Amino acid sequence: MKKALVVFSGGQDSSTCLVWAMRKFDAVEAITFDYDQRHRVEIVCAKKIAKIKKIKHTVIDARFLHDMTKNALTRKNVKIEWKNALPSTFVPGRNLMFLSLAGIIAYQKGIQNIVAGVCQTDFSGYPDCRDAFIQSLQKTLNLAMEYDFTMHTPLMFLTKKETVELMRDFGEIDLLRHTHTCYYGKRPACGACPACELRLKGFREAGIADPLPYEKV
Amino acid sequence: MKKALVVFSGGQDSSTCLVWAMRKFDAVEAITFDYDQRHRVEIVCAKKIAKIKKIKHTVIDARFLHDMTKNALTRKNVKIEWKNALPSTFVPGRNLMFLSLAGIIAYQKGIQNIVAGVCQTDFSGYPDCRDAFIQSLQKTLNLAMEYDFTMHTPLMFLTKKETVELMRDFGEIDLLRHTHTCYYGKRPACGACPACELRLKGFREAGIADPLPYEKV
Repeated sequence: MKKALVVFSGGQDSSTCLVWAMRKFDAVEAITFDYDQRHRVEIVCAKKIAKIKKIKHTVIDARFLHDMTKNALTRKNVKIEWKNALPSTFVPGRNLMFLSLAGIIAYQKGIQNIVAGVCQTDFSGYPDCRDAFIQSLQKTLNLAMEYDFTMHTPLMFLTKKETVELMRDFGEIDLLRHTHTCYYGKRPACGACPACELRLKGFREAGIADPLPYEKV
Repeated sequence: MKKALVVFSGGQDSSTCLVWAMRKFDAVEAITFDYDQRHRVEIVCAKKIAKIKKIKHTVIDARFLHDMTKNALTRKNVKIEWKNALPSTFVPGRNLMFLSLAGIIAYQKGIQNIVAGVCQTDFSGYPDCRDAFIQSLQKTLNLAMEYDFTMHTPLMFLTKKETVELMRDFGEIDLLRHTHTCYYGKRPACGACPACELRLKGFREAGIADPLPYEKV
């Protein structure tokens, strides 16, 4: 029986990965991290989607990451800006932490497959979304626990357009109604922040209507 | 100015690394992790040693690791056993977590050097004490944050005897009085658990008296 653990934020990408994993593995579990993120409404969304898909889902307390890092996703007084090479929304070490914690959980559950929705095509300047990082992390995790993890990142080389098309091919576009993307944590989504913009661009290019409600598009 | 961050448990090895780092770098800070460890008295020891050496010292709340892992160091009802290839005291992902958290802290402080007292000579079956893991982690940390960390592990290929001799050469044997080693968290130390045994063996082989008080030796 092939088991997988999905690192699941409740966003578009990790929801697509969840659906992907349910088709690929015999048993799928999901974990969501609570790091007191600005857009922590995504945790509510993750719970809802896990319930709809009947997936065992655990929310992990990772508030230490909030306390340890100061950036636009962990501090409301830091402006969300994507003008520089490194956006103000970069949480240093976030994927390193989340995927390592996923490894610790998976190890204890006897799960060897870890699925994450990282993507270097639209990587937005985040170094920890790139394939070189994921490959290196897989090796590090295996050495750390003397275990045989495989990291799966089905969206790594897809554009946002192709990620939308993947969900269309899965017949799951409507599930994206429940996902969360907006950096400001708004529902309806703001439609204007860099995360909303990127999402909307993908739907537009795919010629598919985003089922998510927006304040303005 | 060369700055370093020492991952400092308050034990013999990391105290040796602290002294080593103070000789090698212009500025040294230390961090200690509180993971509600069975032997959490080591945190008190770490504070004392940092005060003696006038080192900026921070205790990091890492209790999530306690909650997430079940083993002899995080559960009092798990027996401390070193009979199997993997001791019951193995905390899966511990060094991965501690060194990654050190990386996140160092990154934000503009510190590029991370010092850890891991050692594969007496590695006790812990995979995350070996050089291959450290080398891989350094690469992963650098990719995760697009930064130029160097991991320093001065004890990696030393025996416990040689670690004792290093402190003798530094003229710091007496500092080891304040360190903590015993897995049971006993002070005076039990002298009988695997950690105490390994420590005592090193002192015995070096022909130096351990300044630490023991219940029995």
